[in-house]
Amino acid sequence: MKNIEIKINTQTKKYSVILGLNILNNLTKICLEKKINFEKCLIIIDKNIPIFFKKKLINNIKSKKKIFAFKANEKNKNLKSINKIHQLLFKNKFNREDCLISFGGGITGDVAGFAASTFKRGIKFINIPTTLLSQVDSSIGGKTGVNNEYGKNQIGSFYQPDLVISDIRLLNSLPFREIICGYAEILKSSLIDEKKSFVYLDKNLNSILELKSIMIQKAILNSCNLKKKIIIKDENEKNLRKVLNLGHTFAHAYEATLGYSKKLNHGEAVIFGIKNAIKYSNQIKLLSKKNYMLINNHLDNIPINKNINQIFKRKHINKILTFMKLDKKNKSNKINLILIKNFGKIKNDYQTSYINIKKFLYNEFK
Amino acid sequence: MKNIEIKINTQTKKYSVILGLNILNNLTKICLEKKINFEKCLIIIDKNIPIFFKKKLINNIKSKKKIFAFKANEKNKNLKSINKIHQLLFKNKFNREDCLISFGGGITGDVAGFAASTFKRGIKFINIPTTLLSQVDSSIGGKTGVNNEYGKNQIGSFYQPDLVISDIRLLNSLPFREIICGYAEILKSSLIDEKKSFVYLDKNLNSILELKSIMIQKAILNSCNLKKKIIIKDENEKNLRKVLNLGHTFAHAYEATLGYSKKLNHGEAVIFGIKNAIKYSNQIKLLSKKNYMLINNHLDNIPINKNINQIFKRKHINKILTFMKLDKKNKSNKINLILIKNFGKIKNDYQTSYINIKKFLYNEFK
Repeated sequence: MKNIEIKINTQTKKYSVILGLNILNNLTKICLEKKINFEKCLIIIDKNIPIFFKKKLINNIKSKKKIFAFKANEKNKNLKSINKIHQLLFKNKFNREDCLISFGGGITGDVAGFAASTFKRGIKFINIPTTLLSQVDSSIGGKTGVNNEYGKNQIGSFYQPDLVISDIRLLNSLPFREIICGYAEILKSSLIDEKKSFVYLDKNLNSILELKSIMIQKAILNSCNLKKKIIIKDENEKNLRKVLNLGHTFAHAYEATLGYSKKLNHGEAVIFGIKNAIKYSNQIKLLSKKNYMLINNHLDNIPINKNINQIFKRKHINKILTFMKLDKKNKSNKINLILIKNFGKIKNDYQTSYINIKKFLYNEFK
Repeated sequence: MKNIEIKINTQTKKYSVILGLNILNNLTKICLEKKINFEKCLIIIDKNIPIFFKKKLINNIKSKKKIFAFKANEKNKNLKSINKIHQLLFKNKFNREDCLISFGGGITGDVAGFAASTFKRGIKFINIPTTLLSQVDSSIGGKTGVNNEYGKNQIGSFYQPDLVISDIRLLNSLPFREIICGYAEILKSSLIDEKKSFVYLDKNLNSILELKSIMIQKAILNSCNLKKKIIIKDENEKNLRKVLNLGHTFAHAYEATLGYSKKLNHGEAVIFGIKNAIKYSNQIKLLSKKNYMLINNHLDNIPINKNINQIFKRKHINKILTFMKLDKKNKSNKINLILIKNFGKIKNDYQTSYINIKKFLYNEFK
């Protein structure tokens, strides 16, 4: 299998995403090719990463290195962690020409990216996403951030990395639930993309979930390319980029309502959120019944062993709505939903009232 | 006197700087013209601003408004203040389409700008600089940040405002020392600009310091235009933008060494810093003796009633060097100085060793 390079030119940075198998120990070589030089680096490593991969990466880096072992979870995705990283950088006299490397999933990348963007107004940043979710989604596009008592990613910045290295080999060590989590975003991307992208997933669902190299690489590539297409047109989420939040208005509120508990992970919430979004789209006659059924059927074929009604009851609706109101995409007193008209046709500014969402959720829950 | 509009197109934002006399109560009109809409705004107001001006601004804003009275000083330029502003924004359910307005000098603008850039990854931001220093310097270019125990502006971001309104009328309420402070940056800009810019200052020094409308507007305009020219070429201070730090490597270290005491304000430190930079430039035969004398003579004519030797002694040198080492522009183990070859010809990457700076300062101090 060959490495694939995706070149991303944003307004603020040009960078590459390298997608391949067993490429962790190519970091130094890739940096050399890409002229990314640094004397010192701080590697933020998710504590959960198997030692085999950690060693492979660390041994490959010849420059001075410091390690920050990060217990990556939504609770630690906060300003305290940012401060810890900054303190390490200051104490070790890092400057802007040095580098912060994130080695972990989306949480690690978001935290490391925000720390990188605000340390001395920005130092070099390499992202090595280790989960399917972060490889297809958060590692591209420069969204960084941390949570607070008001919700997810409420404090953050837009800051593009200098390089992204996605090693498919890492995925084999993930629990199956994590694969589903990434798959939710792959599916979301396919709905925003041309229909053939969805058809590919529908045909190869099982092979992709089993991580068959060719299929998973193709699925990741499609997803990255779609994201690239969107973000180069709208780096700072002024408008177009909102399409990437298909299903996420519901999903974020679900996660927040449960306090980001392990009961429901991000991908599962996104799957429920997409289910909601397509149903809502169909109910207001935006999405045809045929396409609704096609997508809904695919969603039902994803092997997650839970149902939204096992998790949320009607008594949760007010709490869910409270979190939906906080969504960063809302304007004035309405809730902004991202809905779907057809494959590749997203309505990113459907404004509706709380009461309409309340009614909708009332019918969804028992 | 007519308003002057300076249009600034950076990679990330297009915005205008409006420079005029008595324009505080034109804010709503200007926002309308520039299509800057918001439902709610939070105005960060420096507590020191005379009530007359506060009322003028506040009464002009018709949308929902919250006020945050900020005691602007280097000690409050910290993450605690950022957190306070964020809390106010969250509690009042601000979203990205709302607006943060800074009404104060450089400290207020830097703090408000950093809060704006990191709240939900960026909300609208209007800067109304009230000091000469902030009108000519910090309000343009998008540098935001706060201090910490490691130095000035160690945590921050690059985030362009949506609008800058500079009302010259505000300057009349400033203490003379504050005018000198701004003048230091005007002078610095002139050295980076063509020679005629310096000649204008040399000829009109007294009228400018007396705030004669035509002269001060022209001086501010020249300074803003120079800054604009630089930052549109190098928004994130990768290289060229460093020329704007002429004199600042020394200046920042001086301020830090005194713990940002009122004994030495930023402008005074910059005047000392420029004196150092031109002397260093002349000593290493970069700057001709004639031009050195010309600039040094001008510096001596600026009516500040203190001398560097009244403030620093040789025993301070190690502390000063410690802070110079922390400068964000340094690479590896050298100190990066911004030096001058001629009017408009800046060397922004002169690397030298600590020991050379130590020797230089030893000869400067007693």
